[in-house]
Parts: sequence; C-alpha cells; structure tokens
Amino acid sequence: MLTVALAKGALLKDSIRLFQSIGLDFSAFLEPGMRQLQIEDPTGRARALILRNGDVPVYVEYGQAHLGIVGYDVLQEKRANVAQLVDLGFGGCRMSVAVKQTSPYRSARDFPAHVRVASKFVGCARAYFHELDIPVELIYLSGSVELGPITGMSEAIVDLVATGTTLRENGLQELEVLFESTARLVGHPLSYRLNQDGMGEIVANMRQQVMVP
Amino acid sequence: MLTVALAKGALLKDSIRLFQSIGLDFSAFLEPGMRQLQIEDPTGRARALILRNGDVPVYVEYGQAHLGIVGYDVLQEKRANVAQLVDLGFGGCRMSVAVKQTSPYRSARDFPAHVRVASKFVGCARAYFHELDIPVELIYLSGSVELGPITGMSEAIVDLVATGTTLRENGLQELEVLFESTARLVGHPLSYRLNQDGMGEIVANMRQQVMVP
Repeated sequence: MLTVALAKGALLKDSIRLFQSIGLDFSAFLEPGMRQLQIEDPTGRARALILRNGDVPVYVEYGQAHLGIVGYDVLQEKRANVAQLVDLGFGGCRMSVAVKQTSPYRSARDFPAHVRVASKFVGCARAYFHELDIPVELIYLSGSVELGPITGMSEAIVDLVATGTTLRENGLQELEVLFESTARLVGHPLSYRLNQDGMGEIVANMRQQVMVP
Repeated sequence: MLTVALAKGALLKDSIRLFQSIGLDFSAFLEPGMRQLQIEDPTGRARALILRNGDVPVYVEYGQAHLGIVGYDVLQEKRANVAQLVDLGFGGCRMSVAVKQTSPYRSARDFPAHVRVASKFVGCARAYFHELDIPVELIYLSGSVELGPITGMSEAIVDLVATGTTLRENGLQELEVLFESTARLVGHPLSYRLNQDGMGEIVANMRQQVMVP
C-alpha cells in the first residue's frame, strides 16, 4: 500500500488539503485528541504516518514511506538521500542569521572570528559560514534558539523566520538570509523509478494541483 | 544574579516545587499561556530559563546558567561537561531496548548483526551495543520512536520508559534496561568551585531537601 509521511506542525493542514485534492483523505490527523501515528485513507488505497519534521526524510530514505511532505529547510539540514519531486509552494519561510537589535554587527561579514552562533540547523549554519570563510563556534540548541543572544551565550543565531514576530518579540533582527524554504514533495528514489504502488500517478496529480493557480 | 536552567515537560513541576522549598519561586512558568523564556524569582535573587531537556546541559556547560535540573538520560546522551551535584530522586524512568511483542528476540544478545535500532538516544544506544559487541545500524529519530518497529523500519528501539504504557499501546515489549534515570541537579564546574552568586548554599539547601524523607 502507498505510504506517505506527513510532518506535524505548520505544514500539516496544507499537506492534508493537498492529498484531499487528489482524492486521499488523511484529515483524521486533524481531529482533536488524535493519538494514532498511522492511519489509512477511507478508500484503503494509502496509509499516512505522522512524524516530526526531521523524521520525514528518514522514513522516505529507508523506503518505509514512498512519499513525504517536508520543508526544504529540513532537506538542507538533513541531506537525506531522497528525490525532491515537487515544490509545493506553501509553508514559505527563510533561514536567516539574526542578532540582537543592539548588536554592533550589520552584516555577517562584520562578525569577529569565532563568534558564537546558536542554531537548530547547525549543518546549514556551518555550510553558510564556511562559504563566507568566517570561522564560527556553533552551539546546537533544540528549541527557543532566540535565548542564545538574550542570555549572551551566543552573539548570533541561524533560524527559520516566517513572519519575524518571534525575532521582534525577543529584540532580535535579521541580518542575512541563507535561503528561502517551502514545502517539498519528496520520494524514495528507487520506489519512484520503479513506480511502486502507483507513485508516478500520485506525483503527476500533485504536480498538476500545484501548477493550477 | 544566580541563573538556573529548568527543563520543560515531565520534570518541570517537581523542579519548581524543589526550588520553592528552598525559597526561590519560579511557579510563573506553570501559568497557562506563559510565553516568557526567562523569569526572575519575586525576591529578585535568581533568574530561571525554561528550556528543552537537551538544552539544559548546554546552558550550564557554557556558564549561562549556574545550575540546571535535567534527567540523567540527557546527561548520558549529551556527555556535557557539567558537574553532577545532587540526585533529586524524582522523574524516575529507564532507558530500555524494546522490540515488537511478536518479535522472535528475547534478549539483545539474540539480535542478528546489523539489526536496525531506532532511537532519540543514539549515543546511549551506540555505547550499549558496542559494550555487548553487537554491530547495529542506528537510525536517529526525533520523536515517536515506536513507529520504527511498527512500520518495519527497525527491529528494535532504545527509548525512555516510564510506566510502559506507550510501549504496550504500540504492541512493543521491553527486552533490556540500559540504565535507570532520575532528575539531577547539575552545575557549571568553575562557578561551583568559585561559589559564584551563592551557588554553594543553594546546592547545600537542595541536598538537605532531598535527604529529608
């Protein structure tokens, strides 16, 4: 049976809506108090898993899910061996460098060597500063990264920014944008090549849905 | 000012109660809708940060928090350079290996070579299987680890078990216990040695509270 991996959180509603538009209904995941981690579409043609963002590419890479929907940010961070099939357009945000509004730095190029940068996305941060040839000390945090500069543990952060409200509320400002991110449909490369469980048709239908304005 | 790092989640209530018992009140973190990440005790003697579990040792290691309360499981996984000061007794759970109830394995020693093990605690899992001299393929997952065996992605998991309800609900059973875990008071080693901001007295008071039955 076709298995799809859905990410909890900000992308879930739009992901479910998109699958509904091609005839697969996983809206049971939106019911309050829902505790199941895997459900079947009522027609019995497909199954969905609900996962943390970062786990979506893992299940797809191992072929446990044929398809998954996850942010480009996660794909950049995890560098999982999955096929990026469709840019779905929703879930727009950007990966940015931010500092305190009172910071003297106006650009990442102003950072002194070995500046401390806190991030959930240390892979993305490492690649970015390496590219700029700025040696930085990365501090991995799993949440509330904005506390890094607030407490003085780090001068800067690299984090996802959607509206910028969290940054402003915490007295931070964006300096640089590493990249823009949107939700992506990803697939298990071999299953896609072999068109297992009708994957090709699903992907084609989804591409059609996304192209319709 | 003395700064303490508190972990969100299962340990928070008991951590706050313990600080209350030595005269520091951070109960504002328990108010519904609380969004602040750092608060001061009403007497103005100390500040508390509220963090994800795994970030507590980071803030303490960097000296941004003098003290922190976090599970022994996190300390084992992160191997942060912090001083373990007091075993607080609460938050009891164990790190266990579990498999499906229908699995043929009755002990980790039955596992075939290169068995797949999913875990949030890949460091603990790696150390355990290395000790047993069993080569395993570790799969890092950030949540809902029980889906690993359910979907067939992994034969086993290494995860924290408190009551065992989650395992049972997902058709899994415990095979082995890696270690027992409880909440620990940890401190920044140098600050503790220098008795900064009255840390020594706080630690002594806490030790007293914990020893009183």
